[in-house]
Amino acid sequence: MRDAINAGLQREIEREEGRVASAMRRALEAGGKRLRPIAVLLAGEAFRGEREQLLPYALAIEMVHTSSLILDDLPEMDDAEERRGQPALHRAVGEADAILAAFAMLARGFALAAQPAGGGRRQQELAQKLVLLLENAIGVRGMCEGQSRDLALDASHADLRSVEAIHRLKTGALFAAALEGGGRIGGAEDEALAALFLFGKNLGLAFQVRDDLLDWEGDAAVPALPLHGRPNFVALFGVEAAKEVVRDLHETARRALAPLGSRSAPLIDFATYLEVRES
Amino acid sequence: MRDAINAGLQREIEREEGRVASAMRRALEAGGKRLRPIAVLLAGEAFRGEREQLLPYALAIEMVHTSSLILDDLPEMDDAEERRGQPALHRAVGEADAILAAFAMLARGFALAAQPAGGGRRQQELAQKLVLLLENAIGVRGMCEGQSRDLALDASHADLRSVEAIHRLKTGALFAAALEGGGRIGGAEDEALAALFLFGKNLGLAFQVRDDLLDWEGDAAVPALPLHGRPNFVALFGVEAAKEVVRDLHETARRALAPLGSRSAPLIDFATYLEVRES
Repeated sequence: MRDAINAGLQREIEREEGRVASAMRRALEAGGKRLRPIAVLLAGEAFRGEREQLLPYALAIEMVHTSSLILDDLPEMDDAEERRGQPALHRAVGEADAILAAFAMLARGFALAAQPAGGGRRQQELAQKLVLLLENAIGVRGMCEGQSRDLALDASHADLRSVEAIHRLKTGALFAAALEGGGRIGGAEDEALAALFLFGKNLGLAFQVRDDLLDWEGDAAVPALPLHGRPNFVALFGVEAAKEVVRDLHETARRALAPLGSRSAPLIDFATYLEVRES
Repeated sequence: MRDAINAGLQREIEREEGRVASAMRRALEAGGKRLRPIAVLLAGEAFRGEREQLLPYALAIEMVHTSSLILDDLPEMDDAEERRGQPALHRAVGEADAILAAFAMLARGFALAAQPAGGGRRQQELAQKLVLLLENAIGVRGMCEGQSRDLALDASHADLRSVEAIHRLKTGALFAAALEGGGRIGGAEDEALAALFLFGKNLGLAFQVRDDLLDWEGDAAVPALPLHGRPNFVALFGVEAAKEVVRDLHETARRALAPLGSRSAPLIDFATYLEVRES
């Protein structure tokens, strides 16, 4: 699946020219686990989705995700030096071009969401729904708001509730949109779509907390104190509490899939893979 | 028309809550001439477009435009202190929230483009086309690339051709998308759509050169030298050459409308208004 996604991203950018295209290419070619687009394919293929139909939306989700990483890394946000083992994009091409590349990548994400393969009536209805789903996940009610709250958080007064809310917006929302969107393209019914959304939302949050745990365990001697107000679950609430949160969220995510019956198997496997991953 | 647009923008943002929504509200309420959304309404109403059908796309265009102004003003781009008579957004809410508000506003622009009023088959087909039109204008082949080239331009080696190309990408592309999109919603045929696109492209470029002339005339004692490599037509090529470029572009724009016959009257009036405006 990852190969199909990487090949698709490659096709999208190789025909573009110019300064911004070159910055986009650099960000996309730096690699990444492509978990969110894989979630799109798994959700769609659990129903009647063909790979070819699902791919544009999977690429849309990865473009939007990558664009959000470019912003996160900016000096006025997390001020990161590296991303995916490469220099952060603004360190390679300058801040202005990094911001413009993120902007253009977000725009391309929406264009991809609007063009699920095929041009029939169902595809057009889908296009409209997928664009709205994506905006809901990424915009003023989603990732952007989560990032803003994250940066503004006073770590010394953070409580579990506000930190959870931030991660739901920052990470949960896009996972949920990946799963619901994949299901929609695959022709899932309303009950299944709600189940996929809920699964994605809880899986995304679990993913984020587990990330914090991996950061911590990777460098146990240095407490992962919150930087720039970033709400790190482990630093705030301790290793044991964080592990329990991950277990609970995975349990909730799995239970959410009950309405899918045997179709849920590949999604449960995906959740297990995320729960035990080493990086 | 401006009142309908302002009321529509108001409706879009008043139901949103949070930090990013508040930054978006500030940027949108700072005012603006709303020329691009007016162009959408004029183009659509020249055909069979109803105001109510046209408004979501008009708001989409203004959201996207406003988001691009927020980016332009950032310290790493034009480093502007003011915009529309108010402090630039990043000076009011900080750089991170300004960037996030621009991002969320771009996303909302795509959501608005995807929901022209009404839910019938024609509307769904339209939604798909409008999203692609917008991405073409704003993304890697449009405004983002123009802004990147603008910032990278070595003013001492700028020639008319490269400066024109930058302004076509930065300003012409969105005007063209406003006019073509309005015409599409209004049900214009292909020949008329091509005419509207060409009209918008030339009008947008003329608008930009005239802006440079207004900047110059407003402060004649201080030559408007290019700042941060910004290609100011007047500073680079002189007042007389710039005036001639404006006249030529307006002539080309008007001629492009020939296929529209008598339907072109309100658009010609709009062009005249832009050509003689004082600010």
